[in-house]
Amino acid sequence: MTCSSEENQLQLLTSTDDDYGGVIVQIDQSAMDSTTFLSILRHSISNWKHQEGFWYHHAEPKYLMLVHWIADSANTIPANATHRVGVAAFVVNEKQEVLVVQEKTGHFGGTGSWKFPTGVADQGEDICVAAVREAKEETGVSNLFVVDTEFVEVLAFRQSHMSFFEKSDLFFVCLLRPLSFDIKVQEVEIEAAKWMPFDEYVAQPFMEKYELLRYINDIYLAKVDGHYSGFTPVPTKSSFSNQQNTSYLYLNAGGLKRCNSL
Amino acid sequence: MTCSSEENQLQLLTSTDDDYGGVIVQIDQSAMDSTTFLSILRHSISNWKHQEGFWYHHAEPKYLMLVHWIADSANTIPANATHRVGVAAFVVNEKQEVLVVQEKTGHFGGTGSWKFPTGVADQGEDICVAAVREAKEETGVSNLFVVDTEFVEVLAFRQSHMSFFEKSDLFFVCLLRPLSFDIKVQEVEIEAAKWMPFDEYVAQPFMEKYELLRYINDIYLAKVDGHYSGFTPVPTKSSFSNQQNTSYLYLNAGGLKRCNSL
Repeated sequence: MTCSSEENQLQLLTSTDDDYGGVIVQIDQSAMDSTTFLSILRHSISNWKHQEGFWYHHAEPKYLMLVHWIADSANTIPANATHRVGVAAFVVNEKQEVLVVQEKTGHFGGTGSWKFPTGVADQGEDICVAAVREAKEETGVSNLFVVDTEFVEVLAFRQSHMSFFEKSDLFFVCLLRPLSFDIKVQEVEIEAAKWMPFDEYVAQPFMEKYELLRYINDIYLAKVDGHYSGFTPVPTKSSFSNQQNTSYLYLNAGGLKRCNSL
Repeated sequence: MTCSSEENQLQLLTSTDDDYGGVIVQIDQSAMDSTTFLSILRHSISNWKHQEGFWYHHAEPKYLMLVHWIADSANTIPANATHRVGVAAFVVNEKQEVLVVQEKTGHFGGTGSWKFPTGVADQGEDICVAAVREAKEETGVSNLFVVDTEFVEVLAFRQSHMSFFEKSDLFFVCLLRPLSFDIKVQEVEIEAAKWMPFDEYVAQPFMEKYELLRYINDIYLAKVDGHYSGFTPVPTKSSFSNQQNTSYLYLNAGGLKRCNSL
């Protein structure tokens, strides 16, 4: 170990200055064990000019970003990501039956509760894409699908804090329209999946415990009565950030249309 | 350096197993420079049982989380945070004047454009709180305020990817009602702030470049005509996560009311 650490003393990590007065550490070697890496990183830091005052900005499985603010002005390095995006796939067919699953794992695992599919959006995945994927795969672990759907709108969203580690959660409840009625069950995470009459779905005892779920039930009934408008995705170009890709703007399209048609 | 690193060989970092089969590294010493820490961390890792296969989960200024999945089953460690939450404070007074600022820094810095206040939500800060704060402080850097407001609703939100480092952005456009009409200017980030007639605001040339801003203008006009409903925050208890605090559910409250009143 002492020996390997002395070899490492000769190596330095590749690092580049970023736009914020910090340094980005890059790993060129694809495979390097933690111990070797940390010994090299330690040696590298001792060789960087602004050694003191570095702090962690963020880390992903493949890299760790250290930053250091050189300027005298207030530090304006963009904050680290604070939120995870969760999606619920609320799928109702023409017979007013809700797509429900019984999960093997997770919060509802083994409780016998029939719930709508939920999951976490992947990095870079749009909410309207993630919801359709969750209805199709439920977890993404398996390729077996539950049901094909098309996105209708975001009915509501909930922001909660300290929901995983010290991070926050934005949970988007999405209304989806089924494109098929046959349900296949993927074994990995789901006990079972089926269409359940809405009245039967809302009558489940566990609803008592979840104000959020009761709100969603009320929202759906208002939706059926034609009173409720959620937010639908509209592709937009440009943004306040520098990326020029298309981004989805979620808005009350019905409210806009009614106005424009006047 | 060799000497200090040999002293460090004697130390081990405090670490506790987390619920996901990983290890949480905790820093007991309040102040420790990067080099010393990394040398201790390196030694600690070499002493942990499941040394091989550790990878970065996430890092905050004060800690770095390494994780290792022990079980044979698929890794279900919660994903790292993927999104930053941005807020826009769209404040309009009774004279249909928009609260606009000219920023010294940032995307619009020095362009002479008059824009509504925007900013990034702090960790653990609710969207409806962040929007009011941005209208009051604009950046939070200074305590001098722009204008006191109360939150009305989320008019729309935009999701964009690769907007900072490799992370995504959720940008919530919030309608706020002013509680006062006197505007104080905080010097740090704002050139100036004032009330600008809506027509004058939308007539600014830079609007051409921002489809998002034009959508917000249309939404506001629909709102004035009484056709547009955004999402308002409703406090809810419990959640799919284990935290039992109050979380805000954002929904079309008007749509729900109309239905319940039938």
